[in-house]
Amino acid sequence: MSRLWDKGLALDERVLRYTAGEDYKIDARLVEYDVKGSTAHAKMLAKQGLLSSEDCTKICDGLATLGNQFASDLWQIELQDEDAHTALESRLTDLIGETGGRIHLGRSRNDQVLCALRLYLLDASDALQESVRELSGSLLDLSKKQGGIGLPGYTHMQQAMPSSVELWADGFRQLFADAIQSLQTNRQRISQNPLGSAAGYGTPGLSIDRDETTASLGFETTQSPVTTVQLSRGKAEAGLLFEIALLLNDLSRLAADLLLFYTQEFGFISLADDVTTGSSIMPQKRNPDVLELVRAAAPTAQACLDECLMITAKLPSGYQRDLQRLKFPVFRSIDLALDSVDIMTYLVSSLEFDASQIHMDKSLDAAEQANKLVTEEGIPFREAYKRIALRYA
Amino acid sequence: MSRLWDKGLALDERVLRYTAGEDYKIDARLVEYDVKGSTAHAKMLAKQGLLSSEDCTKICDGLATLGNQFASDLWQIELQDEDAHTALESRLTDLIGETGGRIHLGRSRNDQVLCALRLYLLDASDALQESVRELSGSLLDLSKKQGGIGLPGYTHMQQAMPSSVELWADGFRQLFADAIQSLQTNRQRISQNPLGSAAGYGTPGLSIDRDETTASLGFETTQSPVTTVQLSRGKAEAGLLFEIALLLNDLSRLAADLLLFYTQEFGFISLADDVTTGSSIMPQKRNPDVLELVRAAAPTAQACLDECLMITAKLPSGYQRDLQRLKFPVFRSIDLALDSVDIMTYLVSSLEFDASQIHMDKSLDAAEQANKLVTEEGIPFREAYKRIALRYA
Amino acid sequence: MSRLWDKGLALDERVLRYTAGEDYKIDARLVEYDVKGSTAHAKMLAKQGLLSSEDCTKICDGLATLGNQFASDLWQIELQDEDAHTALESRLTDLIGETGGRIHLGRSRNDQVLCALRLYLLDASDALQESVRELSGSLLDLSKKQGGIGLPGYTHMQQAMPSSVELWADGFRQLFADAIQSLQTNRQRISQNPLGSAAGYGTPGLSIDRDETTASLGFETTQSPVTTVQLSRGKAEAGLLFEIALLLNDLSRLAADLLLFYTQEFGFISLADDVTTGSSIMPQKRNPDVLELVRAAAPTAQACLDECLMITAKLPSGYQRDLQRLKFPVFRSIDLALDSVDIMTYLVSSLEFDASQIHMDKSLDAAEQANKLVTEEGIPFREAYKRIALRYA
Amino acid sequence: MSRLWDKGLALDERVLRYTAGEDYKIDARLVEYDVKGSTAHAKMLAKQGLLSSEDCTKICDGLATLGNQFASDLWQIELQDEDAHTALESRLTDLIGETGGRIHLGRSRNDQVLCALRLYLLDASDALQESVRELSGSLLDLSKKQGGIGLPGYTHMQQAMPSSVELWADGFRQLFADAIQSLQTNRQRISQNPLGSAAGYGTPGLSIDRDETTASLGFETTQSPVTTVQLSRGKAEAGLLFEIALLLNDLSRLAADLLLFYTQEFGFISLADDVTTGSSIMPQKRNPDVLELVRAAAPTAQACLDECLMITAKLPSGYQRDLQRLKFPVFRSIDLALDSVDIMTYLVSSLEFDASQIHMDKSLDAAEQANKLVTEEGIPFREAYKRIALRYA
Repeated sequence: MSRLWDKGLALDERVLRYTAGEDYKIDARLVEYDVKGSTAHAKMLAKQGLLSSEDCTKICDGLATLGNQFASDLWQIELQDEDAHTALESRLTDLIGETGGRIHLGRSRNDQVLCALRLYLLDASDALQESVRELSGSLLDLSKKQGGIGLPGYTHMQQAMPSSVELWADGFRQLFADAIQSLQTNRQRISQNPLGSAAGYGTPGLSIDRDETTASLGFETTQSPVTTVQLSRGKAEAGLLFEIALLLNDLSRLAADLLLFYTQEFGFISLADDVTTGSSIMPQKRNPDVLELVRAAAPTAQACLDECLMITAKLPSGYQRDLQRLKFPVFRSIDLALDSVDIMTYLVSSLEFDASQIHMDKSLDAAEQANKLVTEEGIPFREAYKRIALRYA
Repeated sequence: MSRLWDKGLALDERVLRYTAGEDYKIDARLVEYDVKGSTAHAKMLAKQGLLSSEDCTKICDGLATLGNQFASDLWQIELQDEDAHTALESRLTDLIGETGGRIHLGRSRNDQVLCALRLYLLDASDALQESVRELSGSLLDLSKKQGGIGLPGYTHMQQAMPSSVELWADGFRQLFADAIQSLQTNRQRISQNPLGSAAGYGTPGLSIDRDETTASLGFETTQSPVTTVQLSRGKAEAGLLFEIALLLNDLSRLAADLLLFYTQEFGFISLADDVTTGSSIMPQKRNPDVLELVRAAAPTAQACLDECLMITAKLPSGYQRDLQRLKFPVFRSIDLALDSVDIMTYLVSSLEFDASQIHMDKSLDAAEQANKLVTEEGIPFREAYKRIALRYA
Repeated sequence: MSRLWDKGLALDERVLRYTAGEDYKIDARLVEYDVKGSTAHAKMLAKQGLLSSEDCTKICDGLATLGNQFASDLWQIELQDEDAHTALESRLTDLIGETGGRIHLGRSRNDQVLCALRLYLLDASDALQESVRELSGSLLDLSKKQGGIGLPGYTHMQQAMPSSVELWADGFRQLFADAIQSLQTNRQRISQNPLGSAAGYGTPGLSIDRDETTASLGFETTQSPVTTVQLSRGKAEAGLLFEIALLLNDLSRLAADLLLFYTQEFGFISLADDVTTGSSIMPQKRNPDVLELVRAAAPTAQACLDECLMITAKLPSGYQRDLQRLKFPVFRSIDLALDSVDIMTYLVSSLEFDASQIHMDKSLDAAEQANKLVTEEGIPFREAYKRIALRYA
Repeated sequence: MSRLWDKGLALDERVLRYTAGEDYKIDARLVEYDVKGSTAHAKMLAKQGLLSSEDCTKICDGLATLGNQFASDLWQIELQDEDAHTALESRLTDLIGETGGRIHLGRSRNDQVLCALRLYLLDASDALQESVRELSGSLLDLSKKQGGIGLPGYTHMQQAMPSSVELWADGFRQLFADAIQSLQTNRQRISQNPLGSAAGYGTPGLSIDRDETTASLGFETTQSPVTTVQLSRGKAEAGLLFEIALLLNDLSRLAADLLLFYTQEFGFISLADDVTTGSSIMPQKRNPDVLELVRAAAPTAQACLDECLMITAKLPSGYQRDLQRLKFPVFRSIDLALDSVDIMTYLVSSLEFDASQIHMDKSLDAAEQANKLVTEEGIPFREAYKRIALRYA
């Protein structure tokens, strides 16, 4: 099977491998979204009289069939396909004949690819919000069970003031509530319909209706003018990857706390056996590998964001093939985020604090004593501070 | 003058220089915000009966005086002060006597610093929005004057389809409209009152009213629980720096287009003399330095964001001195963004397209011709495409 | 098959998937190096009297067999194996019985994994040097064929002084010569034998000979003390990734030049059909996708370097599971570098400059004229500069 | 005073501020190196007969005078100067008259700036090596004093095997020995003479001798061809910044260990009072701020490297003004590295381990016991491992 738009020229195999990159391997997740986008496009064409209703039905049925077959592993994207989009269109033509060649009227690969990608990003964002909600729930359960246990509150990694498991857990829960809100807000960057911008300069000579696909696909707005569509490439993606970078930074800090609490010297917590692993030469050990891997996920999330931002920097306007390289870091970051949040939910649910091991330094209430001196004796705080300090000199 | 909370121990000069870092040089912008935050805090203390109304008046008047004096260059922050906040409090005590020592009741440097920083960030965000609005206005003026001039629309840096100065300018204007909206949305990350969280564990033994300062300072919410305040450090900052990174990426692409258009080979535009410079050895040249420097601002903006994200990654919860290092990249990115947007506004206002130099390739309407073949002859697009392609073989 | 060092505890499937990550998919390249490292280790044990010579032969033959079988696709690394190293050892025990359990004496997974990784990195570095040498050869061929064609020399993307295809190509060739030298120099970071450091604290109670494996595996030095081995994790990797980041930056600049030269407005070069692609809706176009993808490879290389550096930052000393995450960016960067250099070699070999399209501005010799004024009239350069400038005012 | 190469056109003040950037503030360190480079250039011109020996003497004396005056704070670089190089040349003409205008023959600002920068980088590299040597010496002193104290050896932040203060300190000392070697090796990237490449295309019509300045300035090689000079911009800088990023990562890990050891829960070490600070509201605390700031220096070092690499990525060949932005991150990283290494030398010299607080878990010799079982009973390691594991079940 030859690629669709190549005018009969044989591409050297190495060139194909370089240009197709890993798309044919990682694009599986986009097939269902291209089915949606292409179906909406076909129906719009029919409504505008640019496609007969018979052809439209044929195309939509064909797309549905191919989507179902793909979900059932009846076909795969091959290197020769280059990516999900070409794979789908060429199989459509195999399935329903030359009518398949009518689907590409009034669109370009540029808006087609972007449409599928944005539909996917919206779902990914929703899934991530749901996962974060569960993690927060897991911390809430912990807080309900063991919230009353006293914990030293640390500053500079030094015991500073009295805290508790509840205050500790709720501090993180609020971070996660913020993360959910920001993910939700970020949807507006993504939820913009690119269909109809074609290669970035619209569809001269064709009367298409962009708002129609906006409505049928559930996008919030139609992105316009057409020139802004390719200029904005990478921004919605980076928006999501930035939220993920913040979120995985939060998780890295949660992991850092727990790794500290899990040392023999602190000894504040125990972890379930199945989130720890053994050592290959030290028979006595149980290692908190999951926490370490979560801590190390933050760098990957940030690197994916960096990559995304650097790819678009300095590019002249108009579509550039560079943009293809956005997909890899975007998918990688999303997968990592979902996995990391889920594993932490699981880990937190098995976590137990051991009150008997938690030693609260007597000096923790020094600030409170200074406060009392002020309220009882009416002296300035700075003087109360000095007096209390003498007790610990 | 000795630093306030040091218990009489002489700090080695080198240590002071290392720990104070550049704060004493870069903190000038925070003085006015610390005056605001400290004033609101004093009034809240008075309202709660923790400060007499005479002392409150003395403190508030003292802060106002110091703020005005600082604005008039009557005092500076010195290395010995370490930073804006200590400088202000120690000068307050110099000015009004030991009553000055009453202002620090019920707060810590941690929430004090963060309060001033967030008030500053809100103003910086507003100022940046205003600058972007002016840049967009400058592009609109251009569009009104020269929008009708035809431009090739490029994909892959190749002439692809017909476009125009208007479509080109409006594509960027929409990016900037999005930037303004995102900056506005991002305010909710910033607009959270940290006052009353003190060192991160509240103010045991004191009845303070956090919502009071939230209201008087105009924050949208009171950030709680207290433990989330330090855990969230760097997130509001990173949020703003991320918007700036996107914005300066947009500017780098605008600069890339103009640098291309300004080559002798394109020759599409002319630039005013005062945004170009001469060469030290080639007498004939006028160089577009401003555009190059704007293009190169995107890397700096991204590096500042990176630095910000890396500083907080993997830290255990609770305040850590590492957080001090956030200020430098935050200030640097904001200053760069304001300057770069302003200079581009100025440059765009002097920009002229020269229609006589813009050559539109005849092949630009190939897509339109293919579209016509479809609508006139009813053939599938893929077939029309092949037929038109033969004309250019 | 259960993993080797887990003491009978069932690991939840999700945990295994998270902790094993993608290792089982990406580790194939390490099998041959683990065969080498394990063979050298076994022979050292035998020499030290810690393994009978029969057992040693059995183990070495078994490892060789498994290595050959793997190369012939007779077995794969499965998720249940976690990674290449466990896969190999467990299959060794399947093949030769309990003697297989003797190979892990005097080593830990930590030094075993690192040994295989470093042997791989050395080969990767050599392969990359060879590829860069070929790219340089390709530029030399171009220089020989078309070096005499005049090219404007640009500064600020403006025609500045006379240059030529030869000077242009040779400028890049020198970059690549530097790259080869730096890659070669960087081998000293990599070529350090970790075997015998075990988990990072040596092998108490066992008389092993670290220098023996250093010699038999061809490492330049034995890395010591044992505690430095894990502390140095990521540094040799980052060293290679840094060289790659520089190299792909060089390539991005070569691509940027060629993309500029390939615009219709410049029109300096033609590219072979098989390194360009068609458009899905504009039948007339030939797009330089390969060059765009090479330009966009630089961000990926830098992101991989970033990821690598961030993973180790701030970690306490001693092995941490975080280090596992180094492998992915390291492999990704190496693969990308090899592919990108090779494709550019191919592209350059098909590149042709078209002298008839290259217009040299008359002003290009202004600097030379000013130089002449100085030598002929003895006036200061600054005065000559002003005089020549008037001619172009 | 008007800038030298501007042909009488008034530059808008805002433009000047944007284009000059911070150069006039940060360039002070380059004045002495420009004096050296300019002197060598003048002498070469004289030797080639392009400058009379009287003029050469005048120029060299003038440069020496200005260099000394600058070192004595008798003049500064002003915004109107733009940078160190213009400042120097214009003051030279002020001082010695129009003969000053003869110094710029046969060079451009591009090679002039780069020459001064590389001479500076070589000195900075040497200074950093010296500082690292002192830090290593400080660790050696510690090792001599307290090396015999037992320490748990950790993996996964869990006590794993027996170690000691000596093994711990020596692990870091070897990192620093590697750093010194790499810094030294990296000099070859820097030590290349750019003089004579002028704007990147040589000096047509002038017979200059590039090897002469190479020799007199002590560069290892003359960088050629001339086109490679600007293409290589940023690579020597990035090379040094990469070594710094590795080094500050090493320091961040040293700080991480010490921060852990300094917690009340570990309690392994004490720090001198003058490297800790007090708290503003908790009178009892001594905080390890220096260690936290050192830990947080690694992100800055990495961000500077990132910035440097991003600035040159994707640029067409030939000088671009973007390159000016390299200076800031380069200077910032170097200063931070010198300060951070020095402060750690000071801190380590005051560090004391407290053997009485260091608890070694009994299980630490489990690996040794398993090794013994193997050597005494001849059983496979995997079986010995299982038997020992049962003792800790």
